[in-house]
Amino acid sequence: MTGFVSFVSSGPGDPELLTLKAVARLAAADVVLFDDLSSGPILAHVRAGADLIGVGKRAGRASPRQDHVSRLLVDHALTGLRVVRLKSGDSGMFGRLEEETDALDAAGIGYEIIPGVTSASAAAAAAGIPLTRRLTARRVQFVTGADVSGGLPGDLNWAALADPQATTVVFMGKRTFAQMAARLMAEGMAADTPCLLAEAVGHPDQRLTRLTLATMAAHLAGAASTAPALILYGPLAQGALD
Amino acid sequence: MTGFVSFVSSGPGDPELLTLKAVARLAAADVVLFDDLSSGPILAHVRAGADLIGVGKRAGRASPRQDHVSRLLVDHALTGLRVVRLKSGDSGMFGRLEEETDALDAAGIGYEIIPGVTSASAAAAAAGIPLTRRLTARRVQFVTGADVSGGLPGDLNWAALADPQATTVVFMGKRTFAQMAARLMAEGMAADTPCLLAEAVGHPDQRLTRLTLATMAAHLAGAASTAPALILYGPLAQGALD
Repeated sequence: MTGFVSFVSSGPGDPELLTLKAVARLAAADVVLFDDLSSGPILAHVRAGADLIGVGKRAGRASPRQDHVSRLLVDHALTGLRVVRLKSGDSGMFGRLEEETDALDAAGIGYEIIPGVTSASAAAAAAGIPLTRRLTARRVQFVTGADVSGGLPGDLNWAALADPQATTVVFMGKRTFAQMAARLMAEGMAADTPCLLAEAVGHPDQRLTRLTLATMAAHLAGAASTAPALILYGPLAQGALD
Repeated sequence: MTGFVSFVSSGPGDPELLTLKAVARLAAADVVLFDDLSSGPILAHVRAGADLIGVGKRAGRASPRQDHVSRLLVDHALTGLRVVRLKSGDSGMFGRLEEETDALDAAGIGYEIIPGVTSASAAAAAAGIPLTRRLTARRVQFVTGADVSGGLPGDLNWAALADPQATTVVFMGKRTFAQMAARLMAEGMAADTPCLLAEAVGHPDQRLTRLTLATMAAHLAGAASTAPALILYGPLAQGALD
């Protein structure tokens, strides 16, 4: 008998932003593999007696190798168990989901993907702003600020990212944003483009700070926080509450 | 005594993709203003005795004027009621949220925004694909294919939209996608760029169809369905199940 894997998106961190489907899968699981970012009160939905396995990925810390996580998923499913792979935010965004589904495909193991609330939506909601607006922000884009080594990816589409009529949300960009902002301004983006730094979105220590493209770099250089963060910029950030 | 408005994102339509917070707000509401797209079983969470007011916006049908919806929100909140404004998908994406929050700000009425699962995440999850991938799709972008008159917006950033290294999801684009695809190909996008048509995402009659940029136009011309749809294109659509 082969088991089954549910990729469950845990949302931004606030346990109330779990979906009903996520709660149902957590309650029915035999084994739950979770990232550090999707832990805490969310795991309270797991039934007593289920195995909880941390595969801690967290910004700025060494992570277990991706192939080790995939191996764990396959091994547990092959014993016939109901496995939940809990991934923070929406599992389809910047979660390296495909590397894990490829391993399951290769092993002939069935799975489902349960979408969730992306932390980009949660950050905008917390700041009281939408991600799109007719006429002035018809496009919203999400991009990663870090490649696998932690540096700024070398192949970003700068023209797309410097569009003053879009809302851009940078994931995992805290360490590289100074470099990114300089490049965006070189591409012609206004130095006073509104920016929102959203730290620990959906967690009790959530912090929103409204800055500009030009002032964000200095702010980040002086910041000691290692909390995960999103950086949102574009015309809609102007209305963000901090 | 002034009431309070909760903007509640209802997710893509599957009632199991409601968040716990959305369910709690629906259960506590005195009045619920809902769009057609966020109705059905989702409204079963509303307590008996609460007022349900349809403000039906649906693709291809005439909608109540936006200022009428804002007026209803303000009027109900001013009577001291707990008002829920239910919006399909994530309320921050293509939901004209700001027009309603501006009206509440002007009237001095407090509100909160509860983010939800965007139908873009749900479409990708249903198709078994992520929205991003290291190296080949570091950027994901959401754009509307229709302006207020229903035509293709005149000011889209075609270079950003024709980027072969991004995943693009077009909302409300079924009627204009033939025109959009022609323009994307003129910008240099390959005619065989993988495309996914995701209709009625999260609903019992959900339908996924995998095509290409070149074949999608002909497919849409022959399609009679008026179901709401998303169109996703880019390298990751190659792996989509249909």
